[in-house]
Amino acid sequence: MAQPVFVLVRPQMGENIGGAARAMWNFGLDRMRIVDPRDGWPNQKAIAMASGAGRLLDEAGLSATTEAAIADCSYVLATTARARGLSKPVLTPEAAMAETRARISAGEKVAVLFGPERAGLENDDIARASAIINVPVNPEFASLNLAQCVLLTAYEWRRQGVDVPGQRFELAGAEWASAHEVEVLATHYEDRLTTAGFFFPETKAETMKLTLRNLWSRMPLTRSDVQILHGIMRQMVRWKERGK
Amino acid sequence: MAQPVFVLVRPQMGENIGGAARAMWNFGLDRMRIVDPRDGWPNQKAIAMASGAGRLLDEAGLSATTEAAIADCSYVLATTARARGLSKPVLTPEAAMAETRARISAGEKVAVLFGPERAGLENDDIARASAIINVPVNPEFASLNLAQCVLLTAYEWRRQGVDVPGQRFELAGAEWASAHEVEVLATHYEDRLTTAGFFFPETKAETMKLTLRNLWSRMPLTRSDVQILHGIMRQMVRWKERGK
Repeated sequence: MAQPVFVLVRPQMGENIGGAARAMWNFGLDRMRIVDPRDGWPNQKAIAMASGAGRLLDEAGLSATTEAAIADCSYVLATTARARGLSKPVLTPEAAMAETRARISAGEKVAVLFGPERAGLENDDIARASAIINVPVNPEFASLNLAQCVLLTAYEWRRQGVDVPGQRFELAGAEWASAHEVEVLATHYEDRLTTAGFFFPETKAETMKLTLRNLWSRMPLTRSDVQILHGIMRQMVRWKERGK
Repeated sequence: MAQPVFVLVRPQMGENIGGAARAMWNFGLDRMRIVDPRDGWPNQKAIAMASGAGRLLDEAGLSATTEAAIADCSYVLATTARARGLSKPVLTPEAAMAETRARISAGEKVAVLFGPERAGLENDDIARASAIINVPVNPEFASLNLAQCVLLTAYEWRRQGVDVPGQRFELAGAEWASAHEVEVLATHYEDRLTTAGFFFPETKAETMKLTLRNLWSRMPLTRSDVQILHGIMRQMVRWKERGK
């Protein structure tokens, strides 16, 4: 059955990776991906802790970067405890899993990113996400650990059952761009704009790049939108080169 | 605010009592009762694990029997992983917390019983309950621990609270662009791209312009997004002009 991919980004303790596997499998989810685990892979503590859900670890895809882990996904959710002032939709787990079900029914691939235990996801990871999942915890006390965050998200997936009606977006035969395609677009603009001197002054360059990446990932881009945006930039470069 | 009482029945490990306190307080619940804890009371391991939610332990009511712990409650729910063939309503956490909210609004006192880690609640405890809570776990794999079971139940309580919107947009003081601002942006791009020879061949120019206008209007653009997109185009033009 179609289901979201849960991506553990730079997890630290093996026990937590194993705990996350158990949490997922409690609610019938078994597609895990792992980005750059701190203590290498395979991890014996993860295997010991996962008991009964070890298959998820055996089958987990390992990637060096978040970018590679989500390359085939067209909708990416990032879990975070902090509001970051990034202009992205912030969803409850409930709304996020409803959206996930709708998109999966419509044939999309969906990834949910979970950050490292201590620090959570970095801005660079969040910049790749279409929306944020924020668990509505007590504002005076938020202490969910990695496996608990995975558990609540997996529970929401299961709670909403299989029969949520499908399509929300009228795409008229078009397809959503994958995270990889959006990444290539972002890089194309970043490279050309660097050459053109857009990221100025230098002290602000990184912030400007992050802002721009957030802009692309937040937009509901189809593959043909991405082609048009590539075309715009290519044409501006050609125009410049003709002028020389 | 009125809320259910969570009753830990004969809990074994102090860590799990502390973990349950944290799980509750994450979702704003702070009324815990404890029946005959295996290792006595107070429990240093419980206190260490509860860090930040220690107040729940300080204020927890201690009882020798389940009967005494729930004496003042008119509706009692028992959590259990197993169907026991007791003729009682079996509710999902969702239905159970809806019922709990309804009863509390009507002035009732509600208790939720959680069993010891290893064995779960005894038939004698369950016999005192009005209904059963059964978390809809994977039939092939049910491995929720005490704190996780408390966490999911507390989450459901909070999820159904009226004050949590499903989706909000973290705009961080930003504002959505007006239709007029998007129009100005579309025109800016259209004019510059015309000069740059983007709309080619001429027979397709009108369709291409329409596609591009649709793209801008379909995107959820903030005013600052619009400024960045203007900036990108202005910079490409400046770059071209420097090159002449």
